[in-house]
Amino acid sequence: MTTIIRGGTVVNADRAFRADVLCYGDKIVAVGTNLDAPASATVIDAGGQYVMPGGIDPHTHMNLPFMGTVTADDFFTGTAAGLAGGTTTIIDFVIPSPQQSLLEAYRTWRGWAQKAAGDYSFHVAITWWADSVHEEMGTLVRNHGVNSFKHFMAYKNAIMADDETLVKSFRRSLELGAIPTVHAENGELVYQLQQDLLKQGLTGPSSHPLSRPPAVEAEAANRAIAIANVLNTPLYIVHVSCKESLDAITRARAGGQRVYGEALAGHLIIDDSVYQNPDFDFAAGHVMSPPFRGKEHQTALWHGLQGGNLHTTATDHCTFCAEQKAAGRNDFSKIPNGCGGVEDRMAVIWDAGVNSGRLTPSEFVRVTSANAAQIFNIYPRKGVIAVGSDADIVVWDPEASRTISAKTQFAKGGFNVFEGRTVRGIPSATLAAGKLAFHKGELMAKEGAGRHVDRPAFTPVSAR
Amino acid sequence: MTTIIRGGTVVNADRAFRADVLCYGDKIVAVGTNLDAPASATVIDAGGQYVMPGGIDPHTHMNLPFMGTVTADDFFTGTAAGLAGGTTTIIDFVIPSPQQSLLEAYRTWRGWAQKAAGDYSFHVAITWWADSVHEEMGTLVRNHGVNSFKHFMAYKNAIMADDETLVKSFRRSLELGAIPTVHAENGELVYQLQQDLLKQGLTGPSSHPLSRPPAVEAEAANRAIAIANVLNTPLYIVHVSCKESLDAITRARAGGQRVYGEALAGHLIIDDSVYQNPDFDFAAGHVMSPPFRGKEHQTALWHGLQGGNLHTTATDHCTFCAEQKAAGRNDFSKIPNGCGGVEDRMAVIWDAGVNSGRLTPSEFVRVTSANAAQIFNIYPRKGVIAVGSDADIVVWDPEASRTISAKTQFAKGGFNVFEGRTVRGIPSATLAAGKLAFHKGELMAKEGAGRHVDRPAFTPVSAR
Amino acid sequence: MTTIIRGGTVVNADRAFRADVLCYGDKIVAVGTNLDAPASATVIDAGGQYVMPGGIDPHTHMNLPFMGTVTADDFFTGTAAGLAGGTTTIIDFVIPSPQQSLLEAYRTWRGWAQKAAGDYSFHVAITWWADSVHEEMGTLVRNHGVNSFKHFMAYKNAIMADDETLVKSFRRSLELGAIPTVHAENGELVYQLQQDLLKQGLTGPSSHPLSRPPAVEAEAANRAIAIANVLNTPLYIVHVSCKESLDAITRARAGGQRVYGEALAGHLIIDDSVYQNPDFDFAAGHVMSPPFRGKEHQTALWHGLQGGNLHTTATDHCTFCAEQKAAGRNDFSKIPNGCGGVEDRMAVIWDAGVNSGRLTPSEFVRVTSANAAQIFNIYPRKGVIAVGSDADIVVWDPEASRTISAKTQFAKGGFNVFEGRTVRGIPSATLAAGKLAFHKGELMAKEGAGRHVDRPAFTPVSAR
Amino acid sequence: MTTIIRGGTVVNADRAFRADVLCYGDKIVAVGTNLDAPASATVIDAGGQYVMPGGIDPHTHMNLPFMGTVTADDFFTGTAAGLAGGTTTIIDFVIPSPQQSLLEAYRTWRGWAQKAAGDYSFHVAITWWADSVHEEMGTLVRNHGVNSFKHFMAYKNAIMADDETLVKSFRRSLELGAIPTVHAENGELVYQLQQDLLKQGLTGPSSHPLSRPPAVEAEAANRAIAIANVLNTPLYIVHVSCKESLDAITRARAGGQRVYGEALAGHLIIDDSVYQNPDFDFAAGHVMSPPFRGKEHQTALWHGLQGGNLHTTATDHCTFCAEQKAAGRNDFSKIPNGCGGVEDRMAVIWDAGVNSGRLTPSEFVRVTSANAAQIFNIYPRKGVIAVGSDADIVVWDPEASRTISAKTQFAKGGFNVFEGRTVRGIPSATLAAGKLAFHKGELMAKEGAGRHVDRPAFTPVSAR
Repeated sequence: MTTIIRGGTVVNADRAFRADVLCYGDKIVAVGTNLDAPASATVIDAGGQYVMPGGIDPHTHMNLPFMGTVTADDFFTGTAAGLAGGTTTIIDFVIPSPQQSLLEAYRTWRGWAQKAAGDYSFHVAITWWADSVHEEMGTLVRNHGVNSFKHFMAYKNAIMADDETLVKSFRRSLELGAIPTVHAENGELVYQLQQDLLKQGLTGPSSHPLSRPPAVEAEAANRAIAIANVLNTPLYIVHVSCKESLDAITRARAGGQRVYGEALAGHLIIDDSVYQNPDFDFAAGHVMSPPFRGKEHQTALWHGLQGGNLHTTATDHCTFCAEQKAAGRNDFSKIPNGCGGVEDRMAVIWDAGVNSGRLTPSEFVRVTSANAAQIFNIYPRKGVIAVGSDADIVVWDPEASRTISAKTQFAKGGFNVFEGRTVRGIPSATLAAGKLAFHKGELMAKEGAGRHVDRPAFTPVSAR
Repeated sequence: MTTIIRGGTVVNADRAFRADVLCYGDKIVAVGTNLDAPASATVIDAGGQYVMPGGIDPHTHMNLPFMGTVTADDFFTGTAAGLAGGTTTIIDFVIPSPQQSLLEAYRTWRGWAQKAAGDYSFHVAITWWADSVHEEMGTLVRNHGVNSFKHFMAYKNAIMADDETLVKSFRRSLELGAIPTVHAENGELVYQLQQDLLKQGLTGPSSHPLSRPPAVEAEAANRAIAIANVLNTPLYIVHVSCKESLDAITRARAGGQRVYGEALAGHLIIDDSVYQNPDFDFAAGHVMSPPFRGKEHQTALWHGLQGGNLHTTATDHCTFCAEQKAAGRNDFSKIPNGCGGVEDRMAVIWDAGVNSGRLTPSEFVRVTSANAAQIFNIYPRKGVIAVGSDADIVVWDPEASRTISAKTQFAKGGFNVFEGRTVRGIPSATLAAGKLAFHKGELMAKEGAGRHVDRPAFTPVSAR
Repeated sequence: MTTIIRGGTVVNADRAFRADVLCYGDKIVAVGTNLDAPASATVIDAGGQYVMPGGIDPHTHMNLPFMGTVTADDFFTGTAAGLAGGTTTIIDFVIPSPQQSLLEAYRTWRGWAQKAAGDYSFHVAITWWADSVHEEMGTLVRNHGVNSFKHFMAYKNAIMADDETLVKSFRRSLELGAIPTVHAENGELVYQLQQDLLKQGLTGPSSHPLSRPPAVEAEAANRAIAIANVLNTPLYIVHVSCKESLDAITRARAGGQRVYGEALAGHLIIDDSVYQNPDFDFAAGHVMSPPFRGKEHQTALWHGLQGGNLHTTATDHCTFCAEQKAAGRNDFSKIPNGCGGVEDRMAVIWDAGVNSGRLTPSEFVRVTSANAAQIFNIYPRKGVIAVGSDADIVVWDPEASRTISAKTQFAKGGFNVFEGRTVRGIPSATLAAGKLAFHKGELMAKEGAGRHVDRPAFTPVSAR
Repeated sequence: MTTIIRGGTVVNADRAFRADVLCYGDKIVAVGTNLDAPASATVIDAGGQYVMPGGIDPHTHMNLPFMGTVTADDFFTGTAAGLAGGTTTIIDFVIPSPQQSLLEAYRTWRGWAQKAAGDYSFHVAITWWADSVHEEMGTLVRNHGVNSFKHFMAYKNAIMADDETLVKSFRRSLELGAIPTVHAENGELVYQLQQDLLKQGLTGPSSHPLSRPPAVEAEAANRAIAIANVLNTPLYIVHVSCKESLDAITRARAGGQRVYGEALAGHLIIDDSVYQNPDFDFAAGHVMSPPFRGKEHQTALWHGLQGGNLHTTATDHCTFCAEQKAAGRNDFSKIPNGCGGVEDRMAVIWDAGVNSGRLTPSEFVRVTSANAAQIFNIYPRKGVIAVGSDADIVVWDPEASRTISAKTQFAKGGFNVFEGRTVRGIPSATLAAGKLAFHKGELMAKEGAGRHVDRPAFTPVSAR
């Protein structure tokens, strides 16, 4: 199958230039002006549009069993929604229960992911420690294309990793050529604050942000950075939501440490006033951790992306419907944590980032695709429009608009944190592995078309 | 008993002025020019000298059972050595074993302290948590003159307090009007680094600083500050030894948080080259935690005192003799941690601080006496030359010199980290509770003359 | 004349305690419990109230010829208003024109000040440079009680000091034992921005803050700090209004540099929304430089006072009536810069600082009186309730309230930036030089009762 | 002319991969494995070696008339030395005298550059201001391929730009799509310190660093950043030599500002102990501005490159022979400022940066070539190994060594600040515009072979 994208401006992380892009099979085979293509080729007209590497969302939770329920989006609906929004690859999470075999959990998630419409890969969470965990980390890296391990510093009495686990797992990661990642919130403080608020009778969603203030996140970010510093490992911090965490990253990077930060589309755009809404469904629909923050934090996160102290954008896509959220109607700490976004990330970041002059189109590509590909070592297979790369491409119409709504979205869950927002700059077409998956508003995603993306271990030369 | 100190320059934290000081019983009863005194009064000539509040060392360990042995100095020899150096009050530590009753431990330490020659008070360490600990903290504050609790974030598998204990104890302290204090080092990282070094066969004292790098201290300082921030408690960080910890304090204070920092005389003056000395006794004699640091850290600590981000100076006086230190001959982690200094603190800080122009005499009084008295709520009983204050006074001869040596010191242990250093500016006389305890090189300290100093709980008005 | 203040809580910078205060002539002669007083003594009942050192406002402009007009308050009305608000001493500014003799200008201002009702002293501005300026600085320090020199880094084409002047004057100050002070705004940038805004037709008061953004102030603060650093002089920065300037001070102090910062009552409390008011008189009434800032800056300034990176509070009291402000009706850059506040400073800072828990009463005394006295070397004559100090005392009723209004104020100008604000905590009585100047709402200020306060040069021992 | 480089590892800023590189004429025409090449092609064996974009040195002064003499290297010898070291492009400086026409000066420098052996381009200095300067800046951008203007904040009474000039020129640059650059040192402070030192009789080279301490540089960096911030222009700071300047950049970038920093190879590696050398020729040979700094600054600069707060590496190549340096034998301020390095930059940075693990090979390419090409808008013509790019290529042998010495170098001046340093990792071949200019130690540079590189103005899409 041959496709040619004609007349657009190719935007890579390092430059933008006028070129056609020819795809054959699942690869890009030529990039240049006035390319020849076979008569049978599908032609996509990209005149006046940008042709960019498909988005990589390095933080999603499809089909996740969490807090006693399962997310609304499975790997098919979730990746399909991503394709509709220009995201062609997700990196999801395998989360073993404490005492569970990593490999067993890994196989479970791989099974769930069979139905994915877009490409996917997995971080594996380290939620406990034993010699067998040490062993299975090795197996995952050597045999299963895993090069990143996730650590939850929150969720006491559940999946929280204590300092001993962090230290041992970070070190093991280094040995294996994998990168440790953390969800940075001090679980002990969150737990105490939750208990306090509940005791005071403050049981509604507006207590959620009070139980997880910025200092709680910054503490954990700083601690993980210190451990990485002492052990000389790189570190990737997921969903940096506040100025104080970002400051910890900025200080570390200024000290020469290889720390990477991820911002969520939601944290960049939505502020914490949502939790004051008297409508439980609305407020609870925004409950995720870390919570949305005051406006000054959004400004800081944008500065982080502009100045190179934050590197990727993600969504933590983890959708629950109103019935599921209602489990916490009388106790905010029981509201399933999570919001969507995989379908909207590219557009909201373009609209708020590029249209405002904060980011150039090349910088947009960096923070939505190229940096994630480099940090997780799947570059240049992903993250760039270049000969030999996967034909994961989004054709971006900078003048077209869309008003985001749960009513019209492809993702499940019946809720959208960006509801009602009109964005200018949206995909007109998405190619995934060389196949047209979305075109002019029509979604052509196919269940099972997605492939697992092996991510090789880092080597001294590949390491950024 | 009446004593008059004539002709000196009284130096308080807020100003310096010419005045005589008249003492009667254990109190100062007049401060002014040309004071009358009864014929029977002891007259001390302070011409050309400074008359300052006696030093307060807020961090000592006399008679301490630690790492299988007991410190060389007991409460008599330790406080006597302090008096020789111009320090009239110490605040020592009650350290209950995990599971031990706080009150039981408190009574044990009070018993040991009966023989003290100078005044003393106690911080009480919280090394474990239970409802009974919560209760006994209350009893200590209400009935026993304790207004500060200490938490060791280091010493895993021994007295280390985990985050849960920190959170619960900080909150309880706030409720009681007490201030939490921390020894800030991440015990988990120290433990791992120690194991690593030993496995590599690096068993000598030069491994000691490698097992406790600045990042390990800064992590813990930052964590304690975050907990205090979230719970809205003040915080006092003992023996801040490195720039990175100080930076954490400076950031917190710049954010309006009430965090206080203590610098040790040793950390201000001695650098980490001592650990490279091939003589085991010499190197092991310097083993304490946190360890001595590179020269840039000493500059930073002085800046901290100058800029008001550090507040007190102390010694962590905790002396072991060579035979005791030899327990770690084949394993640096078994060297009893501790160095002396209570006798030398005032002189080395004057010499390196005032003679160099870094501190004015008034600032010297702040960091050696007044600030400690205010932070631990015994001001103006201690920390100032004023009518009604305790007659704890040091007469300071800025032109006299002394060469420090273990051979000539009053303290026990047979070792001195300041060995061979000649300091200009030393006490010519020390008055403790109105009695002459040291005069012109002669020590007149009396066993049992010291008194326990009750420290009342803080109230909104007293709080700094 | 004898006065006794009975039954109050004396609050000094270092502590608060129950005591009576006895004044005789212009001095405090006794401080203690149950003091005897002659039957003829005036008795002030301070039961349930605080007895504090009279406020020092280190930044006022009475009788100032500026931008073609003269301020509404002269030295009588201005100092009288101060007494009504508990401020007993002001430090005003002698501002020679470029090329004018410093001594000539000094004599002019001293003449204007003859009518003052409260004590006063003068900073002298260095607005140009010549050998004669160098000479006259010496005369002022040695013979006229001046120990501080002011430098305007703003006001291009008028009184702006260029780098050469700054460098030469700072060095000369050091030599003389005087402290340099700066108004920190980059005059070149202000000028360019003013021209731009006017060219764009943006002539109203809302352009005023746009012409003086925080970066303009921070640049100058940082430059003055660098010059002081290189020349090894102390530095005092007047009216620090924004986070960025404060950050520069905080960095310098953390590096051990002796930099002091002043916050204005207005900048602590009022935000920049006032400039959006369509009523010209209202908006223009708030025009001063630096302008009021966004709310995040007010939070930062409070943190600065709490953490010890800002030291004094002042007003820049410089009142113009509506007719005078109208000079800039068609050109915001012609609006006479200045607002009042000398009458309200103590109360608004108490209300927003102490009632909110940001400051303890002792800290309030530091930032309203004691620190200014120490920095400008008139302590302990001023700034403390102590035997021998000037009987400048404010009796503070923490429960009484007042609603601030131009209609009821003693100050002139017909405008008040705190209009309508109700403050809890106000003076019930003010003693100035031992005389009751304000009592229970009645002002008894006397023209000419104020005295010039000589401020001696700093010596190594006096220097903070 | 066809050349094929076979068997190497191509290293670009974004990745490293095995590939042959085929060059035809002055361009790269193919990059891939097992490329075909005509039999006539020159074959370069790159087995076991890296194939990288030729270095860009964005800061050189060839043929410079300065301080009464002319540099030893002209455009031929200077660019030839660059080719020997793997640097294929330099950006030099046109420095008009105050009052001189920019175009006239530009033509003079273009004339001198005719003999260059490698490609070159010019920054143009703005040393004065007038309407004609405003005009000629436009002409240079539109017609002469200039997109950057340089401002000296040092060199009072010579080429120093005052704030008015900075403000006007920065704004004009923005309007034209050019980037302003600054030499950041406060010329007023330097001047005063020089006068002081000379008055004290401290006339030798050891006074040079004393006259230009870090605070002097940081002040100017901060000031330029503030001006750029207020005017919303990007900014490039040349030869950042100290931690304090870097901190100013780091803060600005963390605030989202587009500020770029350049480190010199010398500042990264050499410390200020060189000025203590009693041999005048040696010490004077190291006199450049800013001077070499203490070791902690070198650590900081490396951290800056690692963390992305510094972007380029350069040399400020500006060579004077011993006879020229001797002009300052009795007055350090008359020593012609300048050192060499264009021949050694790549090798010393590889040795100290890549061999030490500080930088990956890709990061080396960024800081020696790609970033400069992007910042000065000649990417992807320069700065990348890609089809269509200029065939400016260095083949790098990571195992070969060289001991640097003035005796064996190609550059003139008879002195080398890296004298005696043995570096591992050196060029085995350099291709410039498709021609072999250096091979296995033999220099084949041709006078006049270099071309002027036009640098187009920035557009919103090209801007980084």
